Amino acid sequence: MAGTLSIVGVGPGDPELITLRAARLIGSASVVAYFCREKHPSQARTIAQAHIGPDTEELRLVYPFTTEVSVGDPAYHQNMTAFYDQSAQRLAAALASGRNVTLLCEGDPFLYGSAMYVFDRLHKQWNTQVVPGIMAMNGCWSQAQAPMTHGDDVLCVLPATLPEAKLASWLERADAAVIMKIGRNMPHVRQAISQSGRMDDALYVERGTQGGQVITPLAEREGAAPYFSLVLLPGRKRVR
Amino acid sequence: MAGTLSIVGVGPGDPELITLRAARLIGSASVVAYFCREKHPSQARTIAQAHIGPDTEELRLVYPFTTEVSVGDPAYHQNMTAFYDQSAQRLAAALASGRNVTLLCEGDPFLYGSAMYVFDRLHKQWNTQVVPGIMAMNGCWSQAQAPMTHGDDVLCVLPATLPEAKLASWLERADAAVIMKIGRNMPHVRQAISQSGRMDDALYVERGTQGGQVITPLAEREGAAPYFSLVLLPGRKRVR
Ligand SMILES: C[S@@+](CC[C@H](N)C(=O)[O-])C[C@H]1O[C@@H](n2cnc3c(N)ncnc32)[C@H](O)[C@@H]1O
Ligand SMILES: C[S@@+](CC[C@H](N)C(=O)[O-])C[C@H]1O[C@@H](n2cnc3c(N)ncnc32)[C@H](O)[C@@H]1O
Repeated sequence: MAGTLSIVGVGPGDPELITLRAARLIGSASVVAYFCREKHPSQARTIAQAHIGPDTEELRLVYPFTTEVSVGDPAYHQNMTAFYDQSAQRLAAALASGRNVTLLCEGDPFLYGSAMYVFDRLHKQWNTQVVPGIMAMNGCWSQAQAPMTHGDDVLCVLPATLPEAKLASWLERADAAVIMKIGRNMPHVRQAISQSGRMDDALYVERGTQGGQVITPLAEREGAAPYFSLVLLPGRKRVR
Repeated sequence: MAGTLSIVGVGPGDPELITLRAARLIGSASVVAYFCREKHPSQARTIAQAHIGPDTEELRLVYPFTTEVSVGDPAYHQNMTAFYDQSAQRLAAALASGRNVTLLCEGDPFLYGSAMYVFDRLHKQWNTQVVPGIMAMNGCWSQAQAPMTHGDDVLCVLPATLPEAKLASWLERADAAVIMKIGRNMPHVRQAISQSGRMDDALYVERGTQGGQVITPLAEREGAAPYFSLVLLPGRKRVR
């Protein structure tokens, strides 16, 4: 009998922010799989570590490159397609041999997660379950103690990869907003927030819930931002 | 010494979707508090039940009314203000006596949660920590097996209490969207989705992750919707 694929969110970093179900499915899996970069530990695996049994097989899905080819280059998409095809084949081989596979994902699997690409390739053929995880945004707003949406506030989740003008126009409309995928996009994120007149309310959170967490008003933060960072704009506060 | 207030998300319904930290803070609390309606069990308490110790004191914060006064009426806001004031006082009294209090919240505390109103009243004076919970939206999109955002998709979280024209204009712009607080707003939610041309992609989820879960294309769903329901519009799918 074929195994089951469990695609499991492990939350934003603090190992205590994984769910009881995630912990169970990590502990009982024959194979634990995760995406990672060459020569780097997987962040998702680090979060899940305490639950991985000593006899569990590990399947590292190593991204083919990080910086050599730019996202705009058609070769990028070709390489990524081939990588997801191959990752799906490796997972399928484990499932076919009757092993249950738990694929670990940072945050929630279905919010900008690589796991969606193997889900698309596998869920019609193999028994698949998806387990939600605490997302980076709510890990961060809890740590920042920033209530986000009240009443009929609209919350927009915006990737910093959007062009500056688009970001600014979303920020003008949104009541509450979260800007993700900051990294090298920090300069135009800053511009877009200034342009929309919301710099005074913007909170910067780096490595939220992890060791080395930074929480500070964006206006007081200078310089570059790492991959694990986001900006919070709490909604219009209707204190009753 | 004064106690600590822990404001803890317990997720969307499935008891296995609470975090390890939530389980620990429920189990170790002297007092477990929750909002509820008169003569009704609290949904948050039901989710947390297995972790509440036999000697734990329970503090029910009973909403003053549900349907007698409409949200538009100024009396509604006055009553709610008084209710949150009084709830905060009851929590503060427990904290002052040195007891640790865990306040349970459905989903995540800081996304449209009543707990924000007691947080606002208490966090400056009392030791307060906020623990994120799985939100209804990601509980529901995991169950619906609907990957939500890819690449630079924008996700908008929209309350169904917005007027129809506003809802429609958000839906025209958003790549991915979640519509919450449906209940009696179902007729104009349906209208807004039709108007924005997105009915074919809309998924209706009722009691997601709970017993009695319903997942169906919105187009195939007729009639009213209960409080615990939402609509998902997955983002533009960039299958690689
Ligand atoms: C590809 S997205 C994955 C999001 C994830 N699936 C989720 O549910 O939150 C990666 C982005 O999430 C954000 N992120 C993830 N973990 C974070 C953390 N601990 N602190 C701050 N931002 C984080 C950053 O903006 C990062 O660029
Ligand atoms: C006041 S909001 C609270 C949201 C919650 N704090 C969260 O993080 O998701 C209540 C709304 O959440 C949605 N909701 C909560 N639990 C749900 C469930 N199990 N299934 C579907 N929708 C749910 C419904 O739209 C409901 O009207």
